[in-house]
Formats: sequence, structure tokens, C-alpha cells
Amino acid sequence: VKLAHVQALDQADPLASRRQAFNLPEGVIYLDGNSLGALPVAAQARARQVVDLQWGQGLIQSWNSHDWINLPVQLGEKIARLLGAASGQTLCCDSTSINLFKLLHSALHMQQGRSVVLTQSDNFPADLYIAEGLENNIGVAGCQLQRVAAEAIPQHLTREVAVLLLTHVNFKSGAMHDMEQLTRLAHAQGILVIWDLAHSAGAMPLALDRCEVDFAVGCGYKYLNGGPGAPAFLYAATRHHGALQHPLQGWMGHKAPFDFAASYEPAAGIRQFLCGTPSIIAMSILDAALDVFADVEMDVLRGKSEALMELFLELKDANPVLQELQLASPRASQYRGSHLAFTHPDAYAICQALIARQVICDFRAPDILRLGFAPLYISYRNVWDSSVILGEVMASKVYKAEAYAQRAQVT
Amino acid sequence: VKLAHVQALDQADPLASRRQAFNLPEGVIYLDGNSLGALPVAAQARARQVVDLQWGQGLIQSWNSHDWINLPVQLGEKIARLLGAASGQTLCCDSTSINLFKLLHSALHMQQGRSVVLTQSDNFPADLYIAEGLENNIGVAGCQLQRVAAEAIPQHLTREVAVLLLTHVNFKSGAMHDMEQLTRLAHAQGILVIWDLAHSAGAMPLALDRCEVDFAVGCGYKYLNGGPGAPAFLYAATRHHGALQHPLQGWMGHKAPFDFAASYEPAAGIRQFLCGTPSIIAMSILDAALDVFADVEMDVLRGKSEALMELFLELKDANPVLQELQLASPRASQYRGSHLAFTHPDAYAICQALIARQVICDFRAPDILRLGFAPLYISYRNVWDSSVILGEVMASKVYKAEAYAQRAQVT
Repeated sequence: VKLAHVQALDQADPLASRRQAFNLPEGVIYLDGNSLGALPVAAQARARQVVDLQWGQGLIQSWNSHDWINLPVQLGEKIARLLGAASGQTLCCDSTSINLFKLLHSALHMQQGRSVVLTQSDNFPADLYIAEGLENNIGVAGCQLQRVAAEAIPQHLTREVAVLLLTHVNFKSGAMHDMEQLTRLAHAQGILVIWDLAHSAGAMPLALDRCEVDFAVGCGYKYLNGGPGAPAFLYAATRHHGALQHPLQGWMGHKAPFDFAASYEPAAGIRQFLCGTPSIIAMSILDAALDVFADVEMDVLRGKSEALMELFLELKDANPVLQELQLASPRASQYRGSHLAFTHPDAYAICQALIARQVICDFRAPDILRLGFAPLYISYRNVWDSSVILGEVMASKVYKAEAYAQRAQVT
Repeated sequence: VKLAHVQALDQADPLASRRQAFNLPEGVIYLDGNSLGALPVAAQARARQVVDLQWGQGLIQSWNSHDWINLPVQLGEKIARLLGAASGQTLCCDSTSINLFKLLHSALHMQQGRSVVLTQSDNFPADLYIAEGLENNIGVAGCQLQRVAAEAIPQHLTREVAVLLLTHVNFKSGAMHDMEQLTRLAHAQGILVIWDLAHSAGAMPLALDRCEVDFAVGCGYKYLNGGPGAPAFLYAATRHHGALQHPLQGWMGHKAPFDFAASYEPAAGIRQFLCGTPSIIAMSILDAALDVFADVEMDVLRGKSEALMELFLELKDANPVLQELQLASPRASQYRGSHLAFTHPDAYAICQALIARQVICDFRAPDILRLGFAPLYISYRNVWDSSVILGEVMASKVYKAEAYAQRAQVT
């Protein structure tokens, strides 16, 4: 691969102009959008608007005049387009963990007589913790968490299983499940399926309705670029809306919150998953961030994501000093999300050395270097430059000296 | 009362200069800070800083470089000072409803063998809904909600009661409970007490430690001025930290979140109540808003709050046209929070007429006009002016014509 080829790729990239929609620091190559998305220019403007004008000048009246009250539902509809979900099934609220709690409780409630929650041993720990929380504390239905290896999932889909709980794209390896096939296999055994889309939403086309997914949760601050700790989302298929039940009965999920009725009655439809008063500021910022996707075709986005990673892998394969890094992600791009994982005994030090050279990536214990390729703002040239810098770091082994210096400084 | 006297009160007011710390719209008299606090200038600046610089420029590294990771605990400590709470017992996170769920679950878990949650019939409905949610869905312990009138609470404090759940200042009437006495009476029967401080925190001195309160929750967007849907807070007395249990086991509450361990182990102390990733933007804004309290003595603040309400009531008593409005709050200021409630058959129309004349207040069904007196930014002159405008509205009965016109417009 020659630099001229890389430059040609950028020139032909239909998403190249999207980078202008983000305010990225000069000189930084940001390969961590899978952990915290970059700042959209529109989100910056919207932050000023919601704070200075809507809150500062509009005060309490903005609940109506700026329709704050419907923001969680409106945002849900915006996200729905990225999920392949028809209207009325997606809501923006709370955190991914809280949303998973609501859905898992509801799913277990619907599956009385079954109590196993089947999941993957290396599922994102936060999802496991929420399931463990229910394991010890649920009333009506039981809850027993069963953890198996990814490849053993199909054989464990039996009629004892109430819920299959999986993260679509693994947070470490980037390995991606076949959502359609696993959902179908689970349904054949009467199992409800919950997908965590934290590393999927905004990085690829999704088709929740077509795959007949039951429930899903996801995160607003990764590929959706909603800012640190942005509100999360949840999806519940319309066919289940009559059977839902969870104990986080908040007033915003009441059918008539401002009647201040003495007893809880859930709102109809997806709104019943609202709980307390949502952060309007955080939600407004996410709302503006989502507009970056307005005219983006998700197939094109996915195509670029795959091409960026393919380029990186080609450049790596061509450079002898990079052979020490072992690919921990699937080699074929259709089996992974939008980041690459490499193992190396010195992964932590290598990651620090890259960051010191303005290539921002991250480390996951014990030995994983994680490089994310957010296709809205990463260019092919960024990929080239990062592989050059990684090559220099590996060839010089400068990371060893820097790690030594850092340890010396600490002690 | 003469205007000159009112002007003298403003001149002698040690908190008068605090108004400059807020960005209030010109000409508006904002008597709804009990619903949504006004915008502090510092919060506005902090919003720019956290969005433009910390997120936009610092990106993922701000979790460490700007110590986002400890923000919920640091904010908890700032709020603790307003609650009369020693260090290590207060945390900023999630919404009031979610926090109440965590605490009520923990309290019921600690009280095995007892299942009654005693509360007040006209407690804030959101709190009742959360308790109802647990009523049907709790595992280990039972949960039965018992609702009684405020005056009947003491006689219902029996050894069947597990938890006494009360809001300190009633959201409608403004009536305030004697926290110290009720907590003592409850403890004498082995009952744990949870106070909702939504209408108390930031409006008066509180003494959770001295009153030996077990648990408390509260809201960031009323008198704490944290912005619409600001993060909430919770308090759990240190003596209970070893016995807590709730199912919202989020990764941020894990003892070592970035170890990504396969099983949940709660952090020590108050941090165990963290759940998902907190909204750093919303929390940063609240952090700056709390600095307005930095050198405010809460006794002085409370003194001004009482004096503002007393002035309003004197002006009301002196004006014959205002006699139609019935005070629904306790007359003696030691028995109420920082807002006044009045009943009138046309309360809704009167409220709308006041808002049209830039006196922002609110209405609570069926017939309550609510006027809040946030002592950090309401002046004695504001009180005088609002009573004059209310007098004009009532004397002219202009609200009737306006309500008629509005109905005509809608239909």
C-alpha cells in the first residue's frame, strides 16, 4: 500500500466531509470513539442553546415551550432509524444498566416458569452485574444466570432458558454475533432475546424489527457521540408492550404524570419505561449529535468502517516490526464491529506511548490494545499515520523506556 | 408595609449580592425556583468548559485528567455540607426515583421480618410509585405500602413497620415535618427512616447526622439550581454501609470497575450506590451551581426565606382583594419550607394571568397556586411587586377574560 492510494481513498470517500461536523483537537488521531465519541459542532451549539436560552431565559416554561417533556420519545425515534426499528419502540432515558434492569425484569416476568438467563462468559461485565443483581433480588419470577462461551451458545438454547442476554459486539475483541440467526434459534425454544448494542448503534446498519428482536439497550456516548455519560436508550418490540412489568415505576412513566395521582398506572407503549426526570441538558446535546447521522446511509458508513480496518490490517501485515501484535479480533470484517483488538505483553506501555504521540487509543486488561475506527470522523490518512507511528513505537521499543520513566516518576 | 421599608430590607439583606450569581431574564419575577432553579452564571461557564474543552479537546483522557471518575463522590461531598452530613455518606447520581429505589430496597433488606412501608397519603406521588413498584416485585423481603394522613403518622409507628418514608417538605402545601422528632419516634420502634429532601436541600439548614437519619434522597434541579433534570443525590448513614443491598448493581458501583471482573463486588462505602456511567456534563453543571452556596450560611438563607414569605403574607393580609386566596400552607414559618400555597377555584387562570405578567409561579391540580421564594435570587422588592401584580389581577378579574380567550383560541 502506497500513500497515494490512501489519499485516493480519502478523495473518493463519500463520508469525508462529515469530519467537519466534529470539533476534534488539532493533530490528534482519535481511535477511541468506541469508548467516547468526538464532539459534534452541532452538539456544542445546542449545549449553549439549552443552557443559556431554554433554561436561563425560558426557565420552567421550557418544559412546554421547548417540548422538553417529549424529548425522550423524540430522541427514541431518532435513534430508532439507526436501529432499523419502526416508530413507538425506542426510548432515550437513564443509563444502559438501568435500562437493562427494566427490560430483563420485564422479560423474566413474561417467562414465568423459566428462570435461566443465558449469557456469554465474556459479555460486558456491567450487563452481568445487573443480571446478578436480579438473581438475588427478584420477586415473582426467578433468575439464574448461566454463562457460557460464545461458541457454546446455540447448544445451550433450551426450553429452560427464559432470556438470552448478549452484547452484539464484544467490548474487547470486537467479535460480532449473528443477531438474526441467534434470535431465531432462541425464539424456536420460546426464549426472549435482549441485545446490548453499545458497540453497534451508530457504527453499522441494524435491523431489530427484521430480526424480530424482543428487547435491546444501548449507549449514547460511543458511536452516537452524545458526550460523556450521555443518556442511553432501550428498545421493546410493540408486540410485548402489554406484558411489561418492572419495579422502577417513575413518575415520568405514569400515564398522566401531572395529575399527581396517588397510584401508579403505566403510560401506554414505550413511554412506560421512563422513570425519574430526565437530564434535559444531556439529552438535548445527544439530540443535536444524532443530527450528524441525518443523511448518512448506514450501509455506506459500515462499508467505510470495514475499509478503514482492512487498510490498517494490510499496513500491519506489511510491516515486520508489527508482527509482535497478535490480532484478537476476527480477521473477516463481517464478524466484527468497528474496532480492532491486538494482544501484546506490553500492550499497556504501547498504548501509553501511542497516546503520548497523539494517537488516542485504549488498553483493556490484561494485554489488549484497542483501536476504534469511527467512520464519521476517521480518515484513511489517519489510519496510515497511526500505523506509521505504531511502527516507529514498536521498532524503537521506546515504550519500554517511557514505561520505566513513568514508573520511576510514580515511585 | 410601605415600599420604603421593603427597599430597606433589600439594602440590609446579606444575600442581596447573590442575585448577581444568576442569569435571570430581565423583568421576570421568578417564583418557581422550587420547581426549576434559575441558571447560575458559573454553571453557564462550566457548561462551555466541560463540553468545549474537557470533552471536545480532552476526549477520553478527561476521565482521568479532569477527574470525571470521582465527580459523583466529590459532588456528594459538596451537597453533604448543605445536609449537615459528615464525609462519606452522600453521593450524586441518577434520578431521585432511582435513588429512592436503591435505598428503599436496602432498608427493606435490612428489616427482614417486617414489611410495612409507612408513608403519608399525600406524599409526592413519584415516591409512592417507587414504593408500589417494590410492593409487587421484591424478592427477599416483603413490601406493603401503608398510607396515612400526616397527623396520624406517630400513632402508626409500630413494630410492624420496616421503613418510614416521608418527604420533608410537602410539594403542594409546603408543610414541613419535624425531622428530628419523627426520626426519633421511628427509631424507638426499630423503624428505619428515609427522607425525601426535594423541597428542602438548598432552601434551609439540614442536620441529617444530628437527627440520626438513616437514609435520604433529593433533587438537583430545584433549590440546588443544577438545571432541568439535573442529577439527584442520596445519603446513607455510615453505620448502615455494611448492610446495604439493592439490585441496581452497576459497573460504576463495583469495587474495581476497570478490572472488568466477571462478578459484582460492591465498592466500599457510599460509592456502592453508583450504577451506570453518570452524565458528566449534567453533573459538572450542578457542580458549578453548588459553588453559589460556598460562603452562604444556611441559617441566614433560611432567615431570608422566612422573611420573604412573611412579607408576602403581610402584603396579602393588607389587601382586601387578596382575601379570596386561602392560605393552604402552615401560617407559622417554622412549619413550612420555602414556598406558599394558596387555594382558589380559579387558581389555574390566576396562575396563567400572573405568568402573562412575568410573575412566574405554578399551579397544582385541582386548585393550588404555588409561589416559591428561593432566597438566593428573590428580593424583597420582587415580593412587593408580585403582590402588587397579583392584587391587580384579582381586583380586575382579568384572569377570567384571559382564560375565556385562551379557551376560545384552543377550540
